[in-house]
Amino acid sequence: MSDPTPAPRPLRIAVCAPGDATDVELADAEAIGRGLAERGCVLVSGGLGGAMAAACRGAKEAGGVTIGILPGYDDKAANPWVDHPLCTGLGQARNAVLAATGQALIAVGGGVGTLSEVALGLRLGRPVVLLGGWAPVLASAEAHALTERQGHRLLAAATPAEAVELALAALAGH
Amino acid sequence: MSDPTPAPRPLRIAVCAPGDATDVELADAEAIGRGLAERGCVLVSGGLGGAMAAACRGAKEAGGVTIGILPGYDDKAANPWVDHPLCTGLGQARNAVLAATGQALIAVGGGVGTLSEVALGLRLGRPVVLLGGWAPVLASAEAHALTERQGHRLLAAATPAEAVELALAALAGH
Amino acid sequence: MSDPTPAPRPLRIAVCAPGDATDVELADAEAIGRGLAERGCVLVSGGLGGAMAAACRGAKEAGGVTIGILPGYDDKAANPWVDHPLCTGLGQARNAVLAATGQALIAVGGGVGTLSEVALGLRLGRPVVLLGGWAPVLASAEAHALTERQGHRLLAAATPAEAVELALAALAGH
Amino acid sequence: MSDPTPAPRPLRIAVCAPGDATDVELADAEAIGRGLAERGCVLVSGGLGGAMAAACRGAKEAGGVTIGILPGYDDKAANPWVDHPLCTGLGQARNAVLAATGQALIAVGGGVGTLSEVALGLRLGRPVVLLGGWAPVLASAEAHALTERQGHRLLAAATPAEAVELALAALAGH
Repeated sequence: MSDPTPAPRPLRIAVCAPGDATDVELADAEAIGRGLAERGCVLVSGGLGGAMAAACRGAKEAGGVTIGILPGYDDKAANPWVDHPLCTGLGQARNAVLAATGQALIAVGGGVGTLSEVALGLRLGRPVVLLGGWAPVLASAEAHALTERQGHRLLAAATPAEAVELALAALAGH
Repeated sequence: MSDPTPAPRPLRIAVCAPGDATDVELADAEAIGRGLAERGCVLVSGGLGGAMAAACRGAKEAGGVTIGILPGYDDKAANPWVDHPLCTGLGQARNAVLAATGQALIAVGGGVGTLSEVALGLRLGRPVVLLGGWAPVLASAEAHALTERQGHRLLAAATPAEAVELALAALAGH
Repeated sequence: MSDPTPAPRPLRIAVCAPGDATDVELADAEAIGRGLAERGCVLVSGGLGGAMAAACRGAKEAGGVTIGILPGYDDKAANPWVDHPLCTGLGQARNAVLAATGQALIAVGGGVGTLSEVALGLRLGRPVVLLGGWAPVLASAEAHALTERQGHRLLAAATPAEAVELALAALAGH
Repeated sequence: MSDPTPAPRPLRIAVCAPGDATDVELADAEAIGRGLAERGCVLVSGGLGGAMAAACRGAKEAGGVTIGILPGYDDKAANPWVDHPLCTGLGQARNAVLAATGQALIAVGGGVGTLSEVALGLRLGRPVVLLGGWAPVLASAEAHALTERQGHRLLAAATPAEAVELALAALAGH
């Protein structure tokens, strides 16, 4: 049997989204998941319910691949649209694994778990796109000054489609 | 030999502070470290240099105990005022260990690592006091709406002394 | 668009194998990877070189899916047969993520990293199959007494094919 | 106020010991804790009950300092002889933090959690002393061959006092 020639890997995009989400956040997360799958990206998320589940469902609607990085040890906690549940058992420290695994991050909605992933993504040099939630907060002049000082790439999108485009553009040439 | 009766444990306060800090942040961190030690608290930090080292130095000036939760495996990375270096090897995921170990958190300065600790602390239900840095950002009406919705305890201090008082007050009756 | 009905997930089997491996270990790891893929399992490994790469190559030869749980932040460290690199940044603590993510574990070869994964897998209640390496050590009467006392499922295989069969049999009815 | 001159840090020794322990293991753990404290070492453990609690109690009987690296978020899980509980929330991955934080490890008893700490300690280049439990297993010719091949320092002690001496001797000149 010949040695298989590996194909180039698809881009991995982390979607950071709260379990307890508003209707708008759910719709946005689903549209982002769908958009990422349509562009051939692998969607990585926290794997649980709420807007995480919406993002995974969107990706599966478009035939994409989804990875869920769970806080606990039981894969039954994964939403049904997670193809590959990772059982980290790490609790909230799994947010750092999510932020590191995405080559870029898209954050939807306003939970503090999501904020931690945004901050960890920036800390690791990943481009981070915000849609709603923390976008107006982190787009303030004060926040801009704090993040610019260290060369972080923090972008704000107005629509799910723009969020997908900004994330892919930030990785172009990668 | 009789069984030793354990004394009540001192409070553990996490000081979240950047390695790359301004002079004001360094002075604030040192004053907070000193203030915590004067009040009998154990200071927990990320253990490295910059404002983390300033906080530890302040605590040791007042005879306190300091714990440093390092990202790597080598205790030589700890600043010299860390009594007990913890070599986690966890990289940025060590921020979650810091946020969880502090019974309350005080954040000084504006790094994104510090922001991740603030967010993780709130996620875990810890009271978080901000001095400078992210304080104006997270005190905005938009941020307030996002964090209030989930009952988080996010407080802003005007001085190092007030930061110490707010953290201890938040734990009173604990 | 209709809600996609999720298919049942394939089994995830963790292959624990050293980076520094003998020729026999490399051949065994490749045969196990191939056998798991032929049985429709997703292969999870530490994602690096040596016997980890051999296992992934075997799985890809048979058209399987491979996940690599890396210790660092750079996906360039993944071997070319990893479909989905997870950049944990956790150092050796990633071994716990690997042990937890596999529904069963197969350990090839004799490194101490591999031994840690075997032990963590048992600790988490996962069935663990040994091929070579630690098999004679952990099959001793003394080890048997220690692990039996706690109801662990530690199995020894004589061939790669038997290792795959034992892992799947241990999960039958799961 | 003058800059405090930091004193050299005491050695940190990790005691790896099961929660579910025999009477002999409990007595051994307590004697090791006492012996380490008498020699001025800081005792690091998993912080829970059983032989972990015995080791901490022994250290406190001799006036030592104890650090407990807990798997969860609640410091109430710490045994009463832990001076400084670390709430990692990392689950079993906290074993890697324990193994990395100890400059040397002493393992008492035969649990698989303990075995994972032994293996992780060896993986990180720490000297590891075994008393009972895994000692006869890992002292076998087969195990010796596996660990010797990579230059690991795995030592067996016959008594608690010898375990303390071997750990300190392994760090002499450190």
